[in-house]
Amino acid sequence: MDMVTDAKSATGAAEQGAFGRRIVDLAARLAQWSETPDGLTCTYLTPTHRAVAAELRDLMRAAGMTAEIDGVGNVVGRYAAADPAAKALIVASHYDTVLNAGSYDGRLGILTGLAAVEHLHRSGRRLPFHLDVIGFAEEEGVRFSAHYIGSSAIAGRFDMRLLQWRDANGQSVADVIHKAGFDPEAIPSLARRAQDLLGYLEVHIEQGPVLLQEGLPVGIVTSIAGTIRYGVAITGMVGHAGTVPMALRRDAAAAAAEIVLYVERRCAAAPTLVGTVGRLTVPGGAINVIPGRCELSLDIRAADDATRDAAASDVLAEIERIGARRKVAIEIKEIQRAPAVPCSAPLQAKLAAAVERAGIRPRYLPSGAGHDAVSFSGLTDIAMLFVRCGNGGISHSPLETITPADADVATRVLLDVLVNFETAHGAR
Amino acid sequence: MDMVTDAKSATGAAEQGAFGRRIVDLAARLAQWSETPDGLTCTYLTPTHRAVAAELRDLMRAAGMTAEIDGVGNVVGRYAAADPAAKALIVASHYDTVLNAGSYDGRLGILTGLAAVEHLHRSGRRLPFHLDVIGFAEEEGVRFSAHYIGSSAIAGRFDMRLLQWRDANGQSVADVIHKAGFDPEAIPSLARRAQDLLGYLEVHIEQGPVLLQEGLPVGIVTSIAGTIRYGVAITGMVGHAGTVPMALRRDAAAAAAEIVLYVERRCAAAPTLVGTVGRLTVPGGAINVIPGRCELSLDIRAADDATRDAAASDVLAEIERIGARRKVAIEIKEIQRAPAVPCSAPLQAKLAAAVERAGIRPRYLPSGAGHDAVSFSGLTDIAMLFVRCGNGGISHSPLETITPADADVATRVLLDVLVNFETAHGAR
Repeated sequence: MDMVTDAKSATGAAEQGAFGRRIVDLAARLAQWSETPDGLTCTYLTPTHRAVAAELRDLMRAAGMTAEIDGVGNVVGRYAAADPAAKALIVASHYDTVLNAGSYDGRLGILTGLAAVEHLHRSGRRLPFHLDVIGFAEEEGVRFSAHYIGSSAIAGRFDMRLLQWRDANGQSVADVIHKAGFDPEAIPSLARRAQDLLGYLEVHIEQGPVLLQEGLPVGIVTSIAGTIRYGVAITGMVGHAGTVPMALRRDAAAAAAEIVLYVERRCAAAPTLVGTVGRLTVPGGAINVIPGRCELSLDIRAADDATRDAAASDVLAEIERIGARRKVAIEIKEIQRAPAVPCSAPLQAKLAAAVERAGIRPRYLPSGAGHDAVSFSGLTDIAMLFVRCGNGGISHSPLETITPADADVATRVLLDVLVNFETAHGAR
Repeated sequence: MDMVTDAKSATGAAEQGAFGRRIVDLAARLAQWSETPDGLTCTYLTPTHRAVAAELRDLMRAAGMTAEIDGVGNVVGRYAAADPAAKALIVASHYDTVLNAGSYDGRLGILTGLAAVEHLHRSGRRLPFHLDVIGFAEEEGVRFSAHYIGSSAIAGRFDMRLLQWRDANGQSVADVIHKAGFDPEAIPSLARRAQDLLGYLEVHIEQGPVLLQEGLPVGIVTSIAGTIRYGVAITGMVGHAGTVPMALRRDAAAAAAEIVLYVERRCAAAPTLVGTVGRLTVPGGAINVIPGRCELSLDIRAADDATRDAAASDVLAEIERIGARRKVAIEIKEIQRAPAVPCSAPLQAKLAAAVERAGIRPRYLPSGAGHDAVSFSGLTDIAMLFVRCGNGGISHSPLETITPADADVATRVLLDVLVNFETAHGAR
């Protein structure tokens, strides 16, 4: 017998396309609940959010798992191994959304896990490890500006200070956890131990155009980019648009324009590097007034920290030169600095082997966006499978889309990895 | 006897600096009335505005003029010639202000005229023409977005359609004129006839840094710049700041940045040309989202229309190239197009002669800002005297300032022009 279970037999009797149709149906079912009447919005511990959690729990139970909603709102399903002392492999992502979101960001990673279990259960097949399919309660940070509430709790990295953060209505994280019937003080007890874990796998939409451009349904994530973010405020000299000669101006918006173009140019100089000025505004600007102030945000990422840091350092130096040359004051505030997180080489290899068995060229790519997987880095091996995003790669938008065929491929690749997991580790 | 009355005798017994102190005092007195508790705001036909009008009328009467508030709220004072059939020379500016204004924009031109008449009256000196000192009720366009209500009425160019324009509370121009006790239908009767006018003189703060930079208290305006204004809206493709490689982006803010820098570069290429992007914003921009939209305003001016139009045409062509190269859609809407207005060469010469007699090098400069003088162009000869603006040339701000010494020089120059007016025309 081969070391590797045949890919066809892994997905067993599943009719071609059946997983994809199931996932599209389930995503649409979950999207019925929304805080906004048009479009999809589901933020931490709102009634909408609770309804989606209950539905996920019921779906997991119907799929043959034990499932509960834990003390921060995560939906934790287990497709148990015969041996209660077996280790667990986590397959997870989040079910909260941004405002006016698409249906797949986060949820695809839960639903592919669910569809895989549905298939295993139907086939009467157990795995030699616990398969934990988890829907994390909070990743997007919309309601409290706190990211990864769900995954950090399970990874044992929940920062208890977050409990005091408040939403726009003045309610704290602790308040809403209390109201949901949970005990904030018990959050540390949700933590998993490294010795109980085999690894962490997350299927997620790419949220970018790379796979679309290359005609590939899935790709293997090499690392999750490190991010540096800055707030930049430029103070020049306000003036009348008609009366101040060009040579005597200290125009804050013109300085900002130079920064925008330098960031664009510098960040085009390395393959995985990206730089974005997402916020740009002349506060109180008027058509006949030379901007005395301009504010912008700066977000720089790369697959490795050295590439990112070199770019950030060049950008800061250039901003200083622009300020000096234009005689404008530029304040720069570092808002965030998160290191790049590498994905596990053995797990990447498992994913790549399954992708190849599906007849697809394995494409390795970094993740420019952060994901729940980051919470588990260092605790256990992590890996991610990206799924092609339609509409030019747009995400965080109702225009976000995937095809049922790609969802089908992703589920088959996941299932293949699951049924072949132990053989490659040689632990069976 | 010289053709020209000696400058010293023109200002007669006025103690050095007395005019300046008087004007600073009067400006402070008028600034007591404001619609905003901190700072100075006086907009069309509010109670504040009516109080300032009454004060100006009383000041004019005390200075020896007949004075009335006319049917649109202008304060019209006349220091009459002995001959009732004499022509009139208008010395005027506006007493309304922008929001949170300085004390001199507009009012300096009324107060220099007032101070000159106070002196003539004290000296018992009549002029061979009617000297009409006018405080226009509306120039800034704050309340109704309609500029020049006051001066256009007297120049016979009031656009009756403006009567239907409404303020933020839904009141129309006609409503507030009615409530003030005037008859909107009678506005055309305020028009002056060309044959009754000798000319129009306006003293105004420069609202720019040119005189300050050159160390000159006053300057002679050559023309009032023509303005073209555009609204520009750029539509690119929104995207996740981490996941879209630089080469695949269609960033609306980066396109805007190129436009800003091109406008700056192109408008530095001719002496009186200026170009300003005063409004610049990524609507709903977020730190982690590639801008899919960016909006900006464009204001281009020059002392002559050909210079301005050549620049505007180059800017529009460059915007088109930027849009094509970056694959972003750029909508351009022309908002305003006003021709440049030349000042009268004979009146400029009178001002220059008086400036020289005051021991100051005559500096000719264009006005980049629009002024009430524009309303009288074509009806009679117009001219303007600019006064040095402190604080780097800032205006439309509480930081706007002039020195008493410069106000003194401006009044002496005006008085010199007045007492020598007829001799240079050879009409006496």
